[in-house]
Amino acid sequence: MNAFEVRRNRLYDWMAVEGVALAMFEDFEGRRDPSLRWLTGQPGDALLFLSLDKQSLLVPWDINMAFLYAKAEAIIPYAEFGRQPIEAMQTAVELFKIPFGSKVEIPAVTPYPVFLRYVEALNDFDVLCRNNGIQEAAQQLRATKDEEEIRIYRKAADITNTVIDLLEENVLSGKLDTEADVALFIETEGRRRGCDGTGFETLAAGPDRSFGIHAFPSYTGGPFAAPGMSILDFGLKYSGYTTDVTLTFARGVLSSRQEKMLSLTEKAYKLALAMVQDGVSVRDVAASVDAFFGKSKKSMPHGLGHGIGLEAHEAPAIRSRPDNPWQLKPGMIFTLEPGLYDPALGGCRLENDILLSDSGVEVLTNARIIRF
Amino acid sequence: MNAFEVRRNRLYDWMAVEGVALAMFEDFEGRRDPSLRWLTGQPGDALLFLSLDKQSLLVPWDINMAFLYAKAEAIIPYAEFGRQPIEAMQTAVELFKIPFGSKVEIPAVTPYPVFLRYVEALNDFDVLCRNNGIQEAAQQLRATKDEEEIRIYRKAADITNTVIDLLEENVLSGKLDTEADVALFIETEGRRRGCDGTGFETLAAGPDRSFGIHAFPSYTGGPFAAPGMSILDFGLKYSGYTTDVTLTFARGVLSSRQEKMLSLTEKAYKLALAMVQDGVSVRDVAASVDAFFGKSKKSMPHGLGHGIGLEAHEAPAIRSRPDNPWQLKPGMIFTLEPGLYDPALGGCRLENDILLSDSGVEVLTNARIIRF
Repeated sequence: MNAFEVRRNRLYDWMAVEGVALAMFEDFEGRRDPSLRWLTGQPGDALLFLSLDKQSLLVPWDINMAFLYAKAEAIIPYAEFGRQPIEAMQTAVELFKIPFGSKVEIPAVTPYPVFLRYVEALNDFDVLCRNNGIQEAAQQLRATKDEEEIRIYRKAADITNTVIDLLEENVLSGKLDTEADVALFIETEGRRRGCDGTGFETLAAGPDRSFGIHAFPSYTGGPFAAPGMSILDFGLKYSGYTTDVTLTFARGVLSSRQEKMLSLTEKAYKLALAMVQDGVSVRDVAASVDAFFGKSKKSMPHGLGHGIGLEAHEAPAIRSRPDNPWQLKPGMIFTLEPGLYDPALGGCRLENDILLSDSGVEVLTNARIIRF
Repeated sequence: MNAFEVRRNRLYDWMAVEGVALAMFEDFEGRRDPSLRWLTGQPGDALLFLSLDKQSLLVPWDINMAFLYAKAEAIIPYAEFGRQPIEAMQTAVELFKIPFGSKVEIPAVTPYPVFLRYVEALNDFDVLCRNNGIQEAAQQLRATKDEEEIRIYRKAADITNTVIDLLEENVLSGKLDTEADVALFIETEGRRRGCDGTGFETLAAGPDRSFGIHAFPSYTGGPFAAPGMSILDFGLKYSGYTTDVTLTFARGVLSSRQEKMLSLTEKAYKLALAMVQDGVSVRDVAASVDAFFGKSKKSMPHGLGHGIGLEAHEAPAIRSRPDNPWQLKPGMIFTLEPGLYDPALGGCRLENDILLSDSGVEVLTNARIIRF
């Protein structure tokens, strides 16, 4: 049984509990859902139907891509349905002999006007479109990585770490001068080593712009790593999975207030990392960091971390909101990224990717605060 | 009156005709709508409310960005609503004293489960969520560019043309060897000249891959501009607006069938360009090119062109579908991009950006077929 079948089986179990006879996933521009790739291997632009009797139908826009990458019991090109998802759904209902009156589930993100058309076209069925449905079930399952995914992450982290070392070398020697130099260096060196590209838009902010959580534009022709604190936040995508790290370059003689920001950020990172273990509440980890910063009258304007995977932000969100139900569990890969920002002093952030496994805690990446 | 007010006024007129008292735009990750930027200047991550009595409320995620870029009668940070769009909508209803029973419109892409929550929260109002609503009205208005947008496009085209010349020079001299070299050169040189970056993922396909309309991955470490036909499709974004051009590099001695493809593509481009004038049906332009290729037993597997602007694909689509209602009008900026593709011979495409103005037809960009 391949990894995709194992993953689909977990969802078939969920469908049995929920009494859902047929479920649909959709991954197109404007409504992306990487769960489709997680379930089939198809990199994107496709529909996927899962039936309670453990059959899958993939409907790809690019059939050649599907033959190269995807695994499913049936594959039918989207063009055969005139690129109409409702027509594809009607075919799936017939193909899998779904009994009249059954529950059939469409994506929770389906726009209301489109939902009305599904209901009309499938009037012999009970059409579900809901939060807490199968899309969310898939997202929750994706929070725990399997062996294949951990293998991919080790490779992605290896490349990321090599690029981090090259970045340090080239920034310190003056070869990478501007924000754009640094960002494009990452793109080039990552792809050269087999990455698909960057996992999200690289954020390179020199001392004048590093106070923003997400500077806009994300990088410019302006100076990077001039005296002061510069932030570099990037991820490299390998076989679809992205890393997510943040380096701070601290150059020259800093003020005592800047030194304090750096030192608090490093301490917060160590504090959070020391708390990582099977069963710990992510809320408690995040709240401890909030309290630590609070003692110095500082506050962090963003969450402490988040799961990573086929998306740069996945479950669990490592935040202190009271209704956050998540605990860390073996197989989870997530970021810890404390940071502090001040419009007058600049910003600093330290972010690494952490794997919690049965054998313990492993920091996959080697991002760091670089002083020079 | 600034350009954003003029644009909002056009939508207020539409709201008056439709009897919509309050309308909402939403631009967040997963549900992007550049009309929000078009109406306010805010680059993204915000809600916008427009009321029939010509008041606007912008609700940005990043309030500092809004103060730098945006114009609206009222600006309130999203954090004040706990980042809940429905809470923001409820405040807008009160702030603008919308009478009970009025029509209030939410985005057509609102997911069905979210729509239900709006209906519940706004049960004193008639909540509209529909195709052919205000989002589509804004998209249609955006098809005709105003003076400010044309000014931006002249600058974007200038930079694009400079980069095209540099590309020719560096590819022909052998300095840019691989698809990735070429793609990252565009990113670097565009940003160096003040662009925000590329407007979409650059497509660089050497002779072995140029037969695909959209090769996957979009560029690799493989050779570009080896003997045969290579396609380079890219856009540079300036102040939010993207150009969209395609060059073909034809290297070495080509077969007569390849020469025929190039010559037909150039002729189709000239034929289409000669038809551009005020009032011409885009369907007729596209159908003429289809017929022209048909005479040589060729067919083009994509549309002839499309409007460009804050998105790489905007209205009007220049396609021959019988129900395409669009005519070209002064102020429209659009691409013409005939191309032919053959798995054995490779592909070629020629794409430029065209401005139709009161004074005539202007080809803004200078993409071309480069033989060497």
